[in-house]
Amino acid sequence: MLDLTQDVRALTAAIVDIESVSGHERALADAVEGALSALPHLKVSRSGETLVARTQLGRAERVLIAGHLDTVPVAGNLPSRVDGDLLYGCGTSDMKAGVAVALKLAAGLPEPNRDVTYVFYDCEEVEAERNGLTRVARDHADWLAADFAVLMEPTDGVIEGGCQGTLRAEITVTGKRAHSARSWLGVNAVHGIEPVLARLNAYEARRPVVDGLEYHEGLNAVGVSGGVAGNVIPDLCVVTVNYRFAPDLSIEQAEQHVREVFDGFAVSIVDAAPGARPGLTHPAAAAFTAAVTGAVGGEPRAKLGWTDVARFSALGVPAVNYGPGDPNLAHQQGEYVALSKIVESERAMLDWLST
Amino acid sequence: MLDLTQDVRALTAAIVDIESVSGHERALADAVEGALSALPHLKVSRSGETLVARTQLGRAERVLIAGHLDTVPVAGNLPSRVDGDLLYGCGTSDMKAGVAVALKLAAGLPEPNRDVTYVFYDCEEVEAERNGLTRVARDHADWLAADFAVLMEPTDGVIEGGCQGTLRAEITVTGKRAHSARSWLGVNAVHGIEPVLARLNAYEARRPVVDGLEYHEGLNAVGVSGGVAGNVIPDLCVVTVNYRFAPDLSIEQAEQHVREVFDGFAVSIVDAAPGARPGLTHPAAAAFTAAVTGAVGGEPRAKLGWTDVARFSALGVPAVNYGPGDPNLAHQQGEYVALSKIVESERAMLDWLST
Repeated sequence: MLDLTQDVRALTAAIVDIESVSGHERALADAVEGALSALPHLKVSRSGETLVARTQLGRAERVLIAGHLDTVPVAGNLPSRVDGDLLYGCGTSDMKAGVAVALKLAAGLPEPNRDVTYVFYDCEEVEAERNGLTRVARDHADWLAADFAVLMEPTDGVIEGGCQGTLRAEITVTGKRAHSARSWLGVNAVHGIEPVLARLNAYEARRPVVDGLEYHEGLNAVGVSGGVAGNVIPDLCVVTVNYRFAPDLSIEQAEQHVREVFDGFAVSIVDAAPGARPGLTHPAAAAFTAAVTGAVGGEPRAKLGWTDVARFSALGVPAVNYGPGDPNLAHQQGEYVALSKIVESERAMLDWLST
Repeated sequence: MLDLTQDVRALTAAIVDIESVSGHERALADAVEGALSALPHLKVSRSGETLVARTQLGRAERVLIAGHLDTVPVAGNLPSRVDGDLLYGCGTSDMKAGVAVALKLAAGLPEPNRDVTYVFYDCEEVEAERNGLTRVARDHADWLAADFAVLMEPTDGVIEGGCQGTLRAEITVTGKRAHSARSWLGVNAVHGIEPVLARLNAYEARRPVVDGLEYHEGLNAVGVSGGVAGNVIPDLCVVTVNYRFAPDLSIEQAEQHVREVFDGFAVSIVDAAPGARPGLTHPAAAAFTAAVTGAVGGEPRAKLGWTDVARFSALGVPAVNYGPGDPNLAHQQGEYVALSKIVESERAMLDWLST
């Protein structure tokens, strides 16, 4: 049974020491469920290894605080150990420190100034189809209803608003095979991608300001492949491009843009995920920003990578990333979190929800 | 025992029916050796499954007539069968019809007007290292000494002079990896090949006349590859190019040319094989051309693909391709040779060596 009255630093270590690699979160989910269910001010629901706990105070606003329970595979870095201000171990930064902060809030704030929904979910580190949020959004969308959400992924204690969307497409150029000794009888598809690359090189990425944050787009080749044999003129060449688009565009608009850039070429969309607006203009978000910047300093910035905040955005819930971990340490064998950052993060969140 | 007194068409069928897929030429090599050894005017040498038979008449000129004994794998196309003027079967066109013509000459011309070296070799259809000519050129180069050589590969009865050389090189562009959500932190190596492709697209291939024949060069990408993952800016992209060069250039000159075309880029030579000059200005060659065009018609043309004539050229022996088979039928299940073409070819060669 997890003791939610202990210091947030000790609680982080306790959670880290319950191994929870993706697909094996049951022990931790059980421990979290046991601890939350003991709190009379929360209504706890469970779907698989995902827990949702809600205050039901009838406040005018509801905010959502979320963290995933799983980690990447352990790499000889458990149990956790403390060295000065640093807590080492698998999942310390990504993102059990954030989970510990959320659990402390859940236990310590029976009457927050806003209704709060706490979400602890499974399988974030693996394919989207297994992600607990995917399942809950599909089966119990009402559990996730809120005016604003904070995903406590590692951001080094700075608010990272929303996230950019991502779209991958294949640009295919065809030609005609021929023996390379008589190349003029063929049409070289590899030579044919020159204008595709020229458009990529000439591309000027947008840097739009969305809800007060400046995003930075990018359109890039992430792969190219073509060739039949060392003596054959290739009849096929495929350039795979990745468009990272600011959250003022929908997937449909992003696709339209890519098709326009490569007008005249065969464009096939491989996959896409929407962005998320930061929603920092919402009153709950403004209060959150004031609390965090008051406690920690550091102006909010745009999140450029894709995160689960996009799932909240898709449900109509503006969302930000904010957590004590250092994102650069995620998934590394030497992963750690600064204990002082966890405390700082807990204080900022308490300020936001209690004053 | 092969009967070399029979008609060249029947002899072709007899040879076709002795299966001799590359690496399994022994039965055919034994049969050829037995037949040649019975001819007192020839000195016969053997290396593995390669036979070399020479007249030793002290003529002012020596010419070499060569053909490979092996075939690609049988594809349900043996034994041979005749349909009208066509002889069907594995190896009919490539190149047992040519071998049969050479054997008829060896047996029927005890006193040719030029000394003749007949070469029947193994493993032409597989990697160069196993090729009987590679071995003989290394171990017994003197066996191949001659003023002019005719390789009786299928050319549809037209003299194809020399051959173009071939060189493959990798043009490597490097960059710097970065997450594609923050692409400006990286350097995209796939984008970096645009100028490589631009130079290929702008390339104007030479069409030089060498020893009276017009060649046609080509410089082409035969492959391209780059990419790490769908969310990573690639730090490496390789374009593989194939330069087919006319026989007025050495391998060293061809390499120098490719390095000049891609000046400023990292160029790595993967493999290269020299071309062969047609040598049609040599008196023995001129007489050969007169005999063939007199018997058959059809002006000599340049050989654009690479063939074993380059091995003779490397030994200082100008060489041409000339044979009764149709090169477009080589390696096909439905391979055949026109019986009339075999007779025509035998008559042309007899004219050349006896008048």
